[in-house]
Amino acid sequence: MPTTDNQDQSGERSVGIVETKLFTFPSLTLDNGETIKPLEIAYETYGKLSPNKDNAILVCHALSGDAHAAGYHEGDKKPGYWDNYIGPGKAIDTNLFFVISSNVIGGCKGSSGPLSKNGKTGKPYQSSFPFVSIADMVNAQEKLVSHFGIEILFAVAGGSMGGMQALQWSVSYPDRVKNCIIMASTSEHSAQQIAFNEVGRQAILADPNYLKGEYSFEHRPAKGLALARMVGHITYLSDELMREKFGRKPPKGNIQSTDFAVGSYLIYQGESFVDRFDANSYIYVTKALDHFSLGTGRELTAALSVVKCRFLVVAYTSDWLYPPYQSLEIVKSLEVNAIPVSFVELNNPAGHDSFLLPNPEQESIIRDFLLSSWEEIG
Amino acid sequence: MPTTDNQDQSGERSVGIVETKLFTFPSLTLDNGETIKPLEIAYETYGKLSPNKDNAILVCHALSGDAHAAGYHEGDKKPGYWDNYIGPGKAIDTNLFFVISSNVIGGCKGSSGPLSKNGKTGKPYQSSFPFVSIADMVNAQEKLVSHFGIEILFAVAGGSMGGMQALQWSVSYPDRVKNCIIMASTSEHSAQQIAFNEVGRQAILADPNYLKGEYSFEHRPAKGLALARMVGHITYLSDELMREKFGRKPPKGNIQSTDFAVGSYLIYQGESFVDRFDANSYIYVTKALDHFSLGTGRELTAALSVVKCRFLVVAYTSDWLYPPYQSLEIVKSLEVNAIPVSFVELNNPAGHDSFLLPNPEQESIIRDFLLSSWEEIG
Repeated sequence: MPTTDNQDQSGERSVGIVETKLFTFPSLTLDNGETIKPLEIAYETYGKLSPNKDNAILVCHALSGDAHAAGYHEGDKKPGYWDNYIGPGKAIDTNLFFVISSNVIGGCKGSSGPLSKNGKTGKPYQSSFPFVSIADMVNAQEKLVSHFGIEILFAVAGGSMGGMQALQWSVSYPDRVKNCIIMASTSEHSAQQIAFNEVGRQAILADPNYLKGEYSFEHRPAKGLALARMVGHITYLSDELMREKFGRKPPKGNIQSTDFAVGSYLIYQGESFVDRFDANSYIYVTKALDHFSLGTGRELTAALSVVKCRFLVVAYTSDWLYPPYQSLEIVKSLEVNAIPVSFVELNNPAGHDSFLLPNPEQESIIRDFLLSSWEEIG
Repeated sequence: MPTTDNQDQSGERSVGIVETKLFTFPSLTLDNGETIKPLEIAYETYGKLSPNKDNAILVCHALSGDAHAAGYHEGDKKPGYWDNYIGPGKAIDTNLFFVISSNVIGGCKGSSGPLSKNGKTGKPYQSSFPFVSIADMVNAQEKLVSHFGIEILFAVAGGSMGGMQALQWSVSYPDRVKNCIIMASTSEHSAQQIAFNEVGRQAILADPNYLKGEYSFEHRPAKGLALARMVGHITYLSDELMREKFGRKPPKGNIQSTDFAVGSYLIYQGESFVDRFDANSYIYVTKALDHFSLGTGRELTAALSVVKCRFLVVAYTSDWLYPPYQSLEIVKSLEVNAIPVSFVELNNPAGHDSFLLPNPEQESIIRDFLLSSWEEIG
């Protein structure tokens, strides 16, 4: 059982037992003019904030993530999604840094979103929740960061949608960020990425339980959400990883039964996702993803002309969902703006999900990027 | 309006107006021991069978295809799926060759399948139709070929599932095929390919109208089938093609409306597919695809040790659904068996669907492959 010590049961370096907290702000005005009132932000922190408040790292999660980035909730066997990289002595070293991790608005894991109570009606927003953008998510995070009295974040880091948030931070708050780590990400979704999200949304909309978003929990559009997750899940894995993971069992069964290991695996992924995610949130968050458009080429170069921090951009050869060319667009636009940027393309075979998985090269690269800036300060 | 001349309205070389015919055989015994009784095969032919019956080319269609490979049905604006390559003076030259094109069994476009009448009950089979394999599809085609009195096919050709059938022909009937053209195909589906098909099947099964396959036409599982088609359609296109085709329009609309051109396109693809395809067929045919296993490596080499024909294997760099490595497995196993094989990887940017699209290089390669064998004969 993990303890509050720096050693969990396996002897690995862990932040130990953690709990998600909630902070409530009076409101947040969104880019589209609408207001979330009150603004609730679910978050976790690891490590200690320095007296100068100069050692804070904000981590941003991906589509199906949440505030629980590291350590263990009481009773859980599995740690937070980025536990491989956050902890004492890990790449994002909680012996040095104060790590803040919050749930995005529009999500369904504690922060304001479709499941939150609408202050006006007293009922869950559901599909009356306003559209949010990646920039809105960042503005919500900014309130939390300021609440801690932090003027300048030592770093913002994230993969996939988390990388988009990190990039947006550097644009929205150029004076408030020293370092920016963007992994397996993009400045703008391609038509293919939008297409996969659209299929997921259409699967939810096609579920007869969807009821224009006004469904009850008991009769929620589980099948539609499970299908959306199945499609998404294929895109997070590489062809190579799937070949290794799933052999070919002899075919069996009738027209309705699944007779391939990969099929059963996907069905399981879909069904378990329904227990931990909300269909409306899936729509809101994928819409935010698809609408994120810092652009490419000249448009991106212009957008990034305001940034002032250092960048680490990481891509994965086997990531066919967020392919390296998208990271290279960001790198190019930063370089045209003479912004310091380190780029690396790692050949982890695991596809898009690689940024979450243990990898000594990746660990070194992140650690060294952070420490080389840290040592300049102190 | 296309005419029976060799010129259609655009002046292109066309086989002109064609119609799908039906032939009924007493029965077909499947590999699994079950019987289809009677066996109906929908087919079209183009060109003339030579007196020696030595100029026949069998073309095999892909998942959502049918017997209509070339020319125009009366009243249609669009020609058959492979009209770019079949016709007078085209790569598969109907001035020289007699082209046979049939609908696979298990399909829904005239050949025995879930929509066919069960000889015993007088009602459509629906989900009581037996499972079929790619080998069964080939055995059904063999009956048609023999019906024409053709002992040896000059060639068998196909892309995607059509390529799998062509490969199976060379294994099932090694003495009956002279040349084999396999495009954008594989000897065995990877876990990723199975995964995409499984999502499509699950979408159909999740549709409340599915009713274990016993649905009426009026209340068929249209939404599930449309979703399956949407997912499939993304896999047939390349990222590059989608980027060119779909710009980014400014986002608009509410949570339920689609605000991206690619989203509207996919929804249209899904909805129009429902008008021309059957959900049960989708399950039967994708199951046949996923169960096709001539294997890879040693297993494939052993399976191909019986083949006697010449091969042309074509892959596309941008085809991430049936990537070139799968074609190269076939090539390798043929080479180990000292079977003559020409391999080419074309860099059409259009992804998996490339084999259907006009391309001068592809046209030459196919034409020359066929003619070099034809000239040897006569």
